[in-house]
Amino acid sequence: MNPLEYLKKNEKESLEQLKDFLRIPSISAQSQHAGDIRTCAKWVADFLTKTGFKAEVCETGGHPAVVGEYHVSDKVPTVLIYGHYDVQPVDPLNLWKTAPFEPIEEGGFLIARGSTDDKGQLFTHMKAAEAYMKTEGKLPCNVKYLIEGEEEAGVDNLTGFIQKNAKRLAADVVLVSDGSQYGRDLPAINFGLRGIAFVEIKLTGPDRDLHSGSYGGAVANPIIMLCKMMASLHDENNRVTIPGFYDNTYKATQWERDQYAKLPFDAEQYRASTGAPKLWGETGYTPIERTWIRPTLECNGITGGYQGEGNKTIIPSWASAKITMRLVPNMKPAEICDKIEAHLKKICPDTMKFEIVKHAGATPVQVPTEGPWLAAAARAIKTGFGREPFFTKEGGSIPVVETFKTVLGIDTLLVGYGQQDDNAHSPNERFSIKDFQRGCLTSAALLDELSKVKL
Amino acid sequence: MNPLEYLKKNEKESLEQLKDFLRIPSISAQSQHAGDIRTCAKWVADFLTKTGFKAEVCETGGHPAVVGEYHVSDKVPTVLIYGHYDVQPVDPLNLWKTAPFEPIEEGGFLIARGSTDDKGQLFTHMKAAEAYMKTEGKLPCNVKYLIEGEEEAGVDNLTGFIQKNAKRLAADVVLVSDGSQYGRDLPAINFGLRGIAFVEIKLTGPDRDLHSGSYGGAVANPIIMLCKMMASLHDENNRVTIPGFYDNTYKATQWERDQYAKLPFDAEQYRASTGAPKLWGETGYTPIERTWIRPTLECNGITGGYQGEGNKTIIPSWASAKITMRLVPNMKPAEICDKIEAHLKKICPDTMKFEIVKHAGATPVQVPTEGPWLAAAARAIKTGFGREPFFTKEGGSIPVVETFKTVLGIDTLLVGYGQQDDNAHSPNERFSIKDFQRGCLTSAALLDELSKVKL
Repeated sequence: MNPLEYLKKNEKESLEQLKDFLRIPSISAQSQHAGDIRTCAKWVADFLTKTGFKAEVCETGGHPAVVGEYHVSDKVPTVLIYGHYDVQPVDPLNLWKTAPFEPIEEGGFLIARGSTDDKGQLFTHMKAAEAYMKTEGKLPCNVKYLIEGEEEAGVDNLTGFIQKNAKRLAADVVLVSDGSQYGRDLPAINFGLRGIAFVEIKLTGPDRDLHSGSYGGAVANPIIMLCKMMASLHDENNRVTIPGFYDNTYKATQWERDQYAKLPFDAEQYRASTGAPKLWGETGYTPIERTWIRPTLECNGITGGYQGEGNKTIIPSWASAKITMRLVPNMKPAEICDKIEAHLKKICPDTMKFEIVKHAGATPVQVPTEGPWLAAAARAIKTGFGREPFFTKEGGSIPVVETFKTVLGIDTLLVGYGQQDDNAHSPNERFSIKDFQRGCLTSAALLDELSKVKL
Repeated sequence: MNPLEYLKKNEKESLEQLKDFLRIPSISAQSQHAGDIRTCAKWVADFLTKTGFKAEVCETGGHPAVVGEYHVSDKVPTVLIYGHYDVQPVDPLNLWKTAPFEPIEEGGFLIARGSTDDKGQLFTHMKAAEAYMKTEGKLPCNVKYLIEGEEEAGVDNLTGFIQKNAKRLAADVVLVSDGSQYGRDLPAINFGLRGIAFVEIKLTGPDRDLHSGSYGGAVANPIIMLCKMMASLHDENNRVTIPGFYDNTYKATQWERDQYAKLPFDAEQYRASTGAPKLWGETGYTPIERTWIRPTLECNGITGGYQGEGNKTIIPSWASAKITMRLVPNMKPAEICDKIEAHLKKICPDTMKFEIVKHAGATPVQVPTEGPWLAAAARAIKTGFGREPFFTKEGGSIPVVETFKTVLGIDTLLVGYGQQDDNAHSPNERFSIKDFQRGCLTSAALLDELSKVKL
């Protein structure tokens, strides 16, 4: 029996084990679950130990991380598998149709908090390793695990932990399954993430709210001045007007454009899914290109003056805006923050005092499409899902991927088995049982494929 | 002894009587003072009765109004004197240096809640009538009083009361002392108030907040679209761009421009008093003209997206703004609301759903400068203050003045004895004792001047 056959034969047992994993309410953001977090870390470490790993629950300064190590040979590559055993809070509890920590099977789905994000996806990699040990007595390549317990908590002790344990975590490639396929039965490999830069600006006119009758017409209104500044940041082609914003930005290769051309995409269905009356964006690009390979500037919040019921007849003293910019490769968050600062200072009217707070954000991520890793992952997906994967990017950011690149110097394979509508972070989180099973097969095939990569 | 001599001789007694009036905590906005309100109304009615008026506390549906009537002859004009006996709440109490309802004299000021707004100013007219009765046994013209108790309460039962009692309140001119001089020792007659129109608008893009990573670039941002609309409402000369906004707007007469040229005005001092880095406004007009005789458009509040600490990476579902326009004579609030609605609908991008709520507001007020009333008031001020008054306008609105015009068909003389820095509505409200005394003399002189107006 080979590892894939083992996984197929033990599907039911795997699902029952995953249910045990899901029953532990490892909510990292709520301190009353600190004990459950420890229980869950130990569950993971014990599973890896039983499988044959040297596994340990490690202190990080916050919730612990589990590190597992298995060395087979210096001649084969080492893969670092990252995942997180912590989960999101469950509220609003009344919107759950079943108890969040009592996993049930329904309509082909496993329903429970953490089923897709990230226990279920992570567990495919744990089962894959077990399948090799049970059938062949060893793994085909060297495997390290870094399984953290704070991904959902809004804190970051992991970066420091990776920095301190850089040698221990050294590997040739990182493997992460904490995302989605392109669509139902459309497996994908994600080879890029946008970065982000964040600034907050504030304009102050008068030193207090003024009566808009007594002063209206003679003193400039900070809200209107802020609107004029914000309005000028996109031109008539919806391009960002900050000087140097597009300098040296990444240009998609022909190979990449070919991948996008292959993707099934229905613009009207996409629009309808957002509820927006019409799509929008930079002239000359498709919606996919606009969200994956083009930088953007958004206002995430604006505040000024009176916001309650009725009206208050004031010229407000100040108005402020939160601005984020999504970045594509070759854009550096700190440089972009400097560019927007210089531009906003320049266009700020002299009737206003200008203040800015700069938060650098996250660097964009690009997984090399030319090297051996993407090809290996593609072959594994072909084995696990029975079809070629799509190659996709993602408009959001996963900061840990950048940490792996900058601290450990290695690229990350982003192979997500979930779906966009799995309700991660929402009530009734679910994971397709078929996707879990295909994920286990893919993870096993991937260990074999990675073992064949010549370094 | 003539009435003016009587007032000068009885200055101390007048001040003591005013203190009694001020000791009644007639706070109209707070229900625990409902009894004090009644006590105060009765105090006013009793004072008028003692003076010789047919006076009555009248029910309005809210706090009562006092109506007083004295008829001397059908051959002389009738003046309706309006004022309010209710006062603002006193909090924050800890910022008061003295007890708000224990009036004290300090540095030439009478300090108490209501001293300038409006008991002190109103009382000058009550003392003026008394002075005639005590010295000449009768008033020189017919006088009616309408003294209300809800001006500070944010409710309006008075309009209905005026409508129901239009015949009883019929007069030739209204006299109101509930405002300010142009400056210290610079008495003024206000001959115009701007009107106001108010709309609230809301733009909705996606039907929920979207992840700005996943959708940023492909779905339009309601905040940025709102900013583009708001930004376009003023042109490079700071003129409002709504088609028809300036149609038929009032143009200042040469007489009016001559009055403004006489006013002492220091633009730098004015700027410094607002704390704004620089003044602003419509090209071709002075700050006084911009606030008194030009219409304006202000955004009093803007709201959209995330406004808490840090950032939330969203494209918000909606953004909204509160807009008021100050109006000058010949502009009709409802028409202006229709014009801005039509314009905003036209410029709203097709990526957004547009909603508007229109609140018509108040009609601008213009006291005829050509007729006999302003001249009579000017002569009275010359008598009371020993100098010619300035003729001014006011950028804000006093809705009751418009009610007198539309319901009773009469113009209002706005002769304020207070000062801008009398702390009306704030802690340590005060009224210059000298202004109180000059006000009493002016009020007495004004009754005589009005009696000479030929109808």
